[in-house]
Parts: sequence; structure tokens; C-alpha cells
Amino acid sequence: MKLYFSPLACSLAARITLYEVGASEVSLVEVDPKTKRTRPDGVDFTTIHPLALVPALELDDGGLLTENAAILQYLAERFGEGRLAPEDALGRARLQQWLGFIGTELHKALFVPLLDKQASKEARAYALAKEESRLGYVDRALAGREHLLDRFSVADAYLFAILNWTAVTPVSLRRYRALADYHARLRDRPSVARAFGEERTLYAKELARRGLSFIVGESGSRS
Amino acid sequence: MKLYFSPLACSLAARITLYEVGASEVSLVEVDPKTKRTRPDGVDFTTIHPLALVPALELDDGGLLTENAAILQYLAERFGEGRLAPEDALGRARLQQWLGFIGTELHKALFVPLLDKQASKEARAYALAKEESRLGYVDRALAGREHLLDRFSVADAYLFAILNWTAVTPVSLRRYRALADYHARLRDRPSVARAFGEERTLYAKELARRGLSFIVGESGSRS
Repeated sequence: MKLYFSPLACSLAARITLYEVGASEVSLVEVDPKTKRTRPDGVDFTTIHPLALVPALELDDGGLLTENAAILQYLAERFGEGRLAPEDALGRARLQQWLGFIGTELHKALFVPLLDKQASKEARAYALAKEESRLGYVDRALAGREHLLDRFSVADAYLFAILNWTAVTPVSLRRYRALADYHARLRDRPSVARAFGEERTLYAKELARRGLSFIVGESGSRS
Repeated sequence: MKLYFSPLACSLAARITLYEVGASEVSLVEVDPKTKRTRPDGVDFTTIHPLALVPALELDDGGLLTENAAILQYLAERFGEGRLAPEDALGRARLQQWLGFIGTELHKALFVPLLDKQASKEARAYALAKEESRLGYVDRALAGREHLLDRFSVADAYLFAILNWTAVTPVSLRRYRALADYHARLRDRPSVARAFGEERTLYAKELARRGLSFIVGESGSRS
């Protein structure tokens, strides 16, 4: 199995998941988000996924699974033995609720236009107008809780990956105390620290290939 | 159990699902999208769901389940006996992939800004710029197929609800032959015809309450 990712993109959630479950049989293949080519082989990623979106998971049968919510649940079920995703009906529904909220309201509606250098200032303003209601909602949900569900799940991995993007967008976590604390706590989790550290290094190399430098302390971002 | 919906919003997918499985124990509660109050009782819906988004499902224990992807999978599992959602791991993953794609790429990224009368023309243009790649992707996936998966699933119910919005946005299905045929075929499916017919009537009444008229032949829309 192969997981296609780009450094510090939302595919970071899948890497965290792999480290949580110790699924060493899944190899990670980097996709340069500018050239849309794999590294180091230079394969045109649009021949693998026409929309060139990461994460994408090449399955044992050669089929490609796309969409973060699907990949995270698949990895959790395949390798996690119930540790990263609840197995009862209501628990699964609550997990899917958070994966849906993070994917639609935060990732697509709020952060994608803010991360996209081609987006007009009006498109960014339209996205930002929903910041307070959406981040405020998660902030209140996390008040007094350690994780989105009763324990660490793939939804936390996804939310962590998205929250990193606040470092390079006008969104600040300072206004959301519970969310900021949650983000800081997760960063210390061993699987997260390892995945985040590795992808920061890869992200710095990616910037260097484009002649840009990586500012120390910046989390980096990717849509 | 109570399903909160607004006429012709994406909650139409949940109504179709209920009709498919014959889950008469779930009652439907209308939410006026302008006043954010239930009908006819006039309850402030923000006291039920702070973001006032439909669909929302009040569970037997009084808890509220939100997010279309979560609600559709929960209803399919609870009432559908495997008819509307695959039960094997890969089948579930493929279902989640489509639910994710429809929710993020189509619903949130493409249609929400187009349906929102408050959105600036630049915000709409930003959304429209992804029309061809996203709808073209689904169109190619549906070529030669009757449904997104091997048979009708909750993903089809969701996609049908979203495609209706083409009637009141600049998006036209004429350029996407397989998608247009699929949409027309689904409209004739008994559960879909019943749900769509009922919500068209409710939508016409909603417009009448606001002093607007319903154009015959229009599908209506709602984000």
C-alpha cells in the first residue's frame, strides 16, 4: 500500500495515523504540490489521481482511495484494531460527524481560500467571515475535553493537520483557548511530534527547491 | 427520532434515505432557513444546533447528530439492513470517499458560495473556477454506470440533492452528459420522486411566506 502525501498538507493526518498504528507496510510517496510530480521518481501524479489531491491511498488491489475522511477511517479499521476509531454505531457516527465538519466547514470552506495564493481578497474575506462561528463551535466542544471523542482518534489527527495552517493564514488560535491548548497538547503526542517534525523538514526542502526559505517556528501550510 | 430539514436543502438526501428504508419512526421537522425557527412550533433552531445547519438528527437518547455524511451513514446502518450502504470495509471506504467528495468539493467549495446571495461576485467566481474539474470528475466516474457504487446508496441521495441546485445557479449539467442522465434517472426513482415532490411543495410555501413565487419547473436550491 502507498500513501501519496505532500509535506504539511492535510495528508499529515494519515501519516500520524500510520505512526499511531505502526503500519510499516504502507510506504509514503511525496508529491510536490507545485509540479504535481512524485519525488524522487518524477511520476506525473495526475496520471494517478486526475484531481491531483492528497492524500490518496493506493490499495493492495491497485485501486486508489481518495478523500481524507475515507482514508483515515480505512487505515484505522485496517490497522488500528479499534484504537483510532470507535467500532459501535453511535461512536462511528460521532467520528464521521467530526470528520465531516473538519473536512467541509474548516478545511474546504475556511482554510482552502486562505491558503490559495490565487484567491482574490474577496474570496478570502468570504471564507474568513465564517471563522468565528466555525472555530468557536469546535472551541466550545473541546472545553474541558482532551480529544474530540473520548480518546484520541483519526478526527484529532485531521484537526491537528488543519490547525497547523493557522501559522500561515490570518486565523489566530489565540481567541480560542481550548482549541489552542488542544493543538499544543497534540503537538507533544509522540506520533504527532514525529510526523510533524518529518514533514516540517520535507516542507523546508520543498521551499528550498523553489528558492524560498523556511522560517523557523512556522508551522507551514498546504491546502 | 427527529430529522430537522429545510425544503430542498441537502437534508433532502436524508428524507430520500428514510423513504428508501421505510423508517416511519423518524419524524421530520421543518426549519425555516431565514428565520431559523421550526415550523409550525416556532422553536429557535439555534438552541438545538448552534450553527443552525440542516440536516440534524435528534437521536433516541436526546443527543444531536449533525453533518450529512454522518447522518446518512447512521440512517443507512440503523434502518437499511445493508441496502443503502456497503457493509464490507472497502465498500464502506468507497462510500465514504463519495460522501467526502460530494460534501467538500461539490457542496461546500462549489455550491455554497453560488447559492449564497450575500457572496460577492469574486467569491462566486472563485467557486465556479473549480466547476469543470470537479463536475467533470464525477461525470467521468458515472459514464456507463447507473450509480456511484454498484447500486443505489446514500451517496446517490446526497449527490441528487446537490445536483438540484444547478437549477438556480450558473452551473449547467448540459456539459456533463453522464451526470445529467444520472440526475434525470434518479428523479424517477420512487423514493426520490416522493421526497422531491414533497419538498418542492414545502419550498413553494416557504417562498410564498416571503412574498416570492415559485417558478414551475425550477428545482429550487438551498445551501
